[in-house]
Amino acid sequence: MLFGSIEAGGTKFVCSVGNEQFEVKNSISFPTTTPKKTLQQAIDYFKQYDVAAIGVGSFGPIDVFQGSKTYGYVMATPKPYWSNMDMIGFLKAQLDVPMYFTTDVNASAYGETLAQDIQNLVYFTIGTGIGAGAIQQGQFIGGISHAEMGHQFVKRHPQDLDFKGICPFHGDCLEGLAAGPSLEARTGKRGENIASDSEIWNIQAYYIAQAAISATLTLAPEKIIFGGGVMSHDHMIARVRKFFKVLLNDYIPTPPLEDYLQLTSIANNGSATLGNFALALEALRSV
Amino acid sequence: MLFGSIEAGGTKFVCSVGNEQFEVKNSISFPTTTPKKTLQQAIDYFKQYDVAAIGVGSFGPIDVFQGSKTYGYVMATPKPYWSNMDMIGFLKAQLDVPMYFTTDVNASAYGETLAQDIQNLVYFTIGTGIGAGAIQQGQFIGGISHAEMGHQFVKRHPQDLDFKGICPFHGDCLEGLAAGPSLEARTGKRGENIASDSEIWNIQAYYIAQAAISATLTLAPEKIIFGGGVMSHDHMIARVRKFFKVLLNDYIPTPPLEDYLQLTSIANNGSATLGNFALALEALRSV
Repeated sequence: MLFGSIEAGGTKFVCSVGNEQFEVKNSISFPTTTPKKTLQQAIDYFKQYDVAAIGVGSFGPIDVFQGSKTYGYVMATPKPYWSNMDMIGFLKAQLDVPMYFTTDVNASAYGETLAQDIQNLVYFTIGTGIGAGAIQQGQFIGGISHAEMGHQFVKRHPQDLDFKGICPFHGDCLEGLAAGPSLEARTGKRGENIASDSEIWNIQAYYIAQAAISATLTLAPEKIIFGGGVMSHDHMIARVRKFFKVLLNDYIPTPPLEDYLQLTSIANNGSATLGNFALALEALRSV
Repeated sequence: MLFGSIEAGGTKFVCSVGNEQFEVKNSISFPTTTPKKTLQQAIDYFKQYDVAAIGVGSFGPIDVFQGSKTYGYVMATPKPYWSNMDMIGFLKAQLDVPMYFTTDVNASAYGETLAQDIQNLVYFTIGTGIGAGAIQQGQFIGGISHAEMGHQFVKRHPQDLDFKGICPFHGDCLEGLAAGPSLEARTGKRGENIASDSEIWNIQAYYIAQAAISATLTLAPEKIIFGGGVMSHDHMIARVRKFFKVLLNDYIPTPPLEDYLQLTSIANNGSATLGNFALALEALRSV
């Protein structure tokens, strides 16, 4: 039996086929353009394979609430052409298999719970934007929607009081202060061109640590996993651990921070693919 | 069949007996003194009744993780004498009935889900401290512990940048900026003596609204309920709704705020009692 994975990102789509051990057997990637063109490419790819079910992890916001009139839709998004797009409806019209629809970060979170063999986990991606997926007792968090933890507010770093932040909705929310583009907005340079001893990294880490503290105080997961471009700088995870310790100030016990705060365990965003395969199986089982 | 409720607060204990409809048939209250004296009063009270099970909602931090060596304990707390107290062990030694052990705010949250007939809810108490309980799909949130949302960090109000906050662990975390004692620390007056048109209330509401936004972005509940002394000032809920709208800036849809952000629906902390009765029944069923 084969399973499909669609990582529907705002920049590119990655479609993969995996076996029952969730090993990737084939994969393609193409840019995200207009909805119909992009989704048709995904459909044409999967028509070559006899997949039993597909897991779809999408950029958001999306409607994941079963029973809603707009279930399976991409909702209001700044990305041109994609607002109010019935993604799952379009896919299902040509691919008649069960599909599991969730956010890209939820798919990554789910993959990490499998890779790490734990039941309670939060996954943050700190990249162009900041998103998070959370799993508790093996189930996604999100009562009537899905987590959008990137837009919570944070305490300002003492050396960063004047920066207005770049979030078009909130200015200086977490995403406005710590997503990748904030680096360029502050310094005029992209992250890869900023020296690793620049104080800017401590400012970023100070905010990212607060996101991890908020997740800890709210959800008490077993681990918090970080992915995304900002965290791919190899000095960042140690900074985040440092500020997490300083700011939480041992208020509640956590596992040792080297275990508790980690980078993704699977290269090339593989946790999302793994998560999508496993969620495809879930969709198949629930038919 | 009768059920017991213990609301184990830091200031007082309230013990109640209810029937199968979870109606309170009898109730007493006494001050929280030393652990053995206080818990013995609870035991002596319940020995008069043939309760089938007891729900215990306690001040924290507590260990609610079944299987832990310290399950049923009050953990490290600033409250004298109560650190590392085996509350459930002490009660069970003389009351041989099933007990459900959770936080006081979780008990209130559970009671509110019953009163409001919903499955996804967050309950905040804004009083001497700030605590929160969260329920999703009818289950408590909290992977390996329980929620401690009172100590997350917030964006400072522009007119409140110099106040250091009163949290002994974090200074200006949410509790340090918006719990009841912060009013006195800023103004020298207790809340009941501060004019209702004082700007201080907007500052408090600005922070409390951020807690509600964080809960919304993380958990997407159906409602957020507020209790506690700070929120008992009748102008406060409208202020919290106002800042919630301004700060979230319609980033994600929520129910109308008059429904979504509400005060407790049962007077005199009755949601905790109701929750404890229902959790007592849960404990009985899981034996």
